[in-house]
Amino acid sequence: MNASPCLYGIGVGPGDPELMTLKAVRLLQAVDFVAYFAKAGRQSTARVIADQHVAATCEELPLFYPMTTEIAFTHPEYRARLAAFYEEATSQIATRLAAGRRGALLCEGDPLFYGSFMHVFERLKGSFQAEIVPGITGMAGAWSAAGLPMTWGDDVLTVIPATLPYDRLVDRLRDADAIVIMKLGKNISKVQQAIEKCGLMDRAVYVEYATRQAERILPLATLGARAAPYFALVLVAGRGRRP
Amino acid sequence: MNASPCLYGIGVGPGDPELMTLKAVRLLQAVDFVAYFAKAGRQSTARVIADQHVAATCEELPLFYPMTTEIAFTHPEYRARLAAFYEEATSQIATRLAAGRRGALLCEGDPLFYGSFMHVFERLKGSFQAEIVPGITGMAGAWSAAGLPMTWGDDVLTVIPATLPYDRLVDRLRDADAIVIMKLGKNISKVQQAIEKCGLMDRAVYVEYATRQAERILPLATLGARAAPYFALVLVAGRGRRP
Repeated sequence: MNASPCLYGIGVGPGDPELMTLKAVRLLQAVDFVAYFAKAGRQSTARVIADQHVAATCEELPLFYPMTTEIAFTHPEYRARLAAFYEEATSQIATRLAAGRRGALLCEGDPLFYGSFMHVFERLKGSFQAEIVPGITGMAGAWSAAGLPMTWGDDVLTVIPATLPYDRLVDRLRDADAIVIMKLGKNISKVQQAIEKCGLMDRAVYVEYATRQAERILPLATLGARAAPYFALVLVAGRGRRP
Repeated sequence: MNASPCLYGIGVGPGDPELMTLKAVRLLQAVDFVAYFAKAGRQSTARVIADQHVAATCEELPLFYPMTTEIAFTHPEYRARLAAFYEEATSQIATRLAAGRRGALLCEGDPLFYGSFMHVFERLKGSFQAEIVPGITGMAGAWSAAGLPMTWGDDVLTVIPATLPYDRLVDRLRDADAIVIMKLGKNISKVQQAIEKCGLMDRAVYVEYATRQAERILPLATLGARAAPYFALVLVAGRGRRP
């Protein structure tokens, strides 16, 4: 029996509930409360993925992001609002842990790879026990769905957030071997330009909603001008040593 | 009922059997044969990880790598021997698929991320149906075990094989945000020098056998001069935007 209060950061994978790990399922069935991030007025994708494994007696703790789309993420006010939100989320979780309850904080993909979980983890880890359960990343879900072997031999993999400014994006793409571009959303046309500029268009594959019902995979060259969801990716496979 | 012959490339994760996905377990229990790579005279790590889920009636198909340690991997003979080995492995699998049997090829970590599976997949995919089941990568196992949030905000993640020559290693480390160095083994001292050269030693974490019984995590600075296993990693966490 592990009686010490603990928060489990549980990666639930890219979307297909069957891509949850055995460990994620076991811990989820054992906790007293389950927390998850969501946009205001929306369902939490992570909570939907995990739905079959949350016990009826488990307390639900949704953590709704503040509305921030009207503020640029470089603005100090954006940062301040998010910081206050993560403080409050941490406090809600800490209160429960202090009362001796065990909980899970669900994360799409992997908790420590661009995950909101990290903001709570950093604030909590000095005071409470936390354990991380890795999850299948969105990029692994995407390259598996696309059947795209990504890294061969000495290939370097570069994972780039599309939120970077155009010039830095181009710098990162030059001389890269295998490439994943994440967080597309409104950045899609900037990414298309950068990929074109670097001569990578014929190798670039676009994947949205990997491993979900709405999954869509196509050459980036045929995507045209359209919006992309935030969780869409562009993949460029490496071409390293292969016997 | 899915009667079409199919090969499943199944990622079994970094080592802890509980980090297998529900999908990996379900498919593994349903296949007619299970194939896996191993060094001659050694157990297959992937097969050990999956052990609990291989049915007693399932045919075992171990694929033993040719002895290659006496030849440099840049030598044409190395390439030729490995190519012949992958041809033969593909042929053994294809024979079974052609007879209407369904099989799994087990992969440590993720099948399409530096996986030997890719060499069979590329040779087989025109002729037979293949499906990829992504797995938790060794690097995700490592950063989870180390409790190290890797990528924040606009951080770029660079994954570098330690097999690169020293100068290229140093080039890749310069200006990197978050870093994973894989395939350490005999390359460990070269990596230590490159990390030192780039001023990253105080941020570098060494992880071997992540999520296994023999797991060991320590600052790279305290590792000293010693051999590292091939599946050891060095992690440098990013320092990007965090509210």
